[in-house]
Amino acid sequence: MKELEEKIRHYGKVIEPDVLKVNSFLNHGVDPILMDHIGKAFADHFKNNEITVVYTIESSGIAPALMSALYLGVPMVILKKNMSSTMSDDLLHATVTSFTKGNTYDLTIEKSLIHDTDRILFIDDFLANGQAAFGVIDLIGQTNASLVGIGIVIEKAFQNGRKLLKEKGYDVYALTSIKRMDSSTITFK
Amino acid sequence: MKELEEKIRHYGKVIEPDVLKVNSFLNHGVDPILMDHIGKAFADHFKNNEITVVYTIESSGIAPALMSALYLGVPMVILKKNMSSTMSDDLLHATVTSFTKGNTYDLTIEKSLIHDTDRILFIDDFLANGQAAFGVIDLIGQTNASLVGIGIVIEKAFQNGRKLLKEKGYDVYALTSIKRMDSSTITFK
Repeated sequence: MKELEEKIRHYGKVIEPDVLKVNSFLNHGVDPILMDHIGKAFADHFKNNEITVVYTIESSGIAPALMSALYLGVPMVILKKNMSSTMSDDLLHATVTSFTKGNTYDLTIEKSLIHDTDRILFIDDFLANGQAAFGVIDLIGQTNASLVGIGIVIEKAFQNGRKLLKEKGYDVYALTSIKRMDSSTITFK
Repeated sequence: MKELEEKIRHYGKVIEPDVLKVNSFLNHGVDPILMDHIGKAFADHFKNNEITVVYTIESSGIAPALMSALYLGVPMVILKKNMSSTMSDDLLHATVTSFTKGNTYDLTIEKSLIHDTDRILFIDDFLANGQAAFGVIDLIGQTNASLVGIGIVIEKAFQNGRKLLKEKGYDVYALTSIKRMDSSTITFK
């Protein structure tokens, strides 16, 4: 996706060897028109996969996932990292260890939001080592619902997320894929 | 907003005297078409206020705020509750105590995302005692930017947020306003 690559080239900052900061248009400051185009691109790619629901993880995935769900005409589910006081119902959990962020968190969903017939598209902002995706796979694996697609805004192709997911039979569709990056240059595949 | 009132009546659950659970369509499960209509309603209301940016707080405000920003044709800023590893720049902070959730958190924004000429619309999912809004006011008050509007999806009018904000000169536009609620009935103003 050329428009996104240009934004990353222009405004992205490589602040550690494997950490790309995109806070001015994706994660903290958000460009809604870009989110609209991202949502349309994911919806176009997955339009024949009979997706019934789009999943994402709070909070950086919400904007691209919402636009994808809107274009696909399906609901969205925000998997929670932080339990809220209203989550009193039956819950499913999965543990995610983020190597990039150096932390561990619990993904949570209320059982009432997941159905055995669901065909789920998981949308996230970054793919690095695939830990978040494997957390979602773990969560969905506790039910009879199916994960039928993974859509990634920015793939760090120099990390092994795609390889690990492919080994388990999951295909990843990334809008941009970074081959290598350092403080001066970002090179796309 | 009739459509929203109907959703709340149908799917909302009063789980404590002042806690309304709307996890099936707003906070956890999200109805993208409803978010689209919410965004359009906020944009219609504030279209003559020369808004330059929409602010919200992660993560429940992101979906309605994104659609509002898209309709207004302006960027969105997600005020962070959780510091991320990429937030290494100069930051502004404000402390918020949530009576509803019984916790205290820090609102954070990178200084580079806020400009003295900004005319800010703050969008949030709920208004109760106004603590989140006052946190945003505190944050913006550390700069020369202006908060020109507050848009709320669901106001709990039996709490005093609107009154406190009005005393400070801020007007609140709520799409729905709950006069009273208990486990069997939700009454709108």
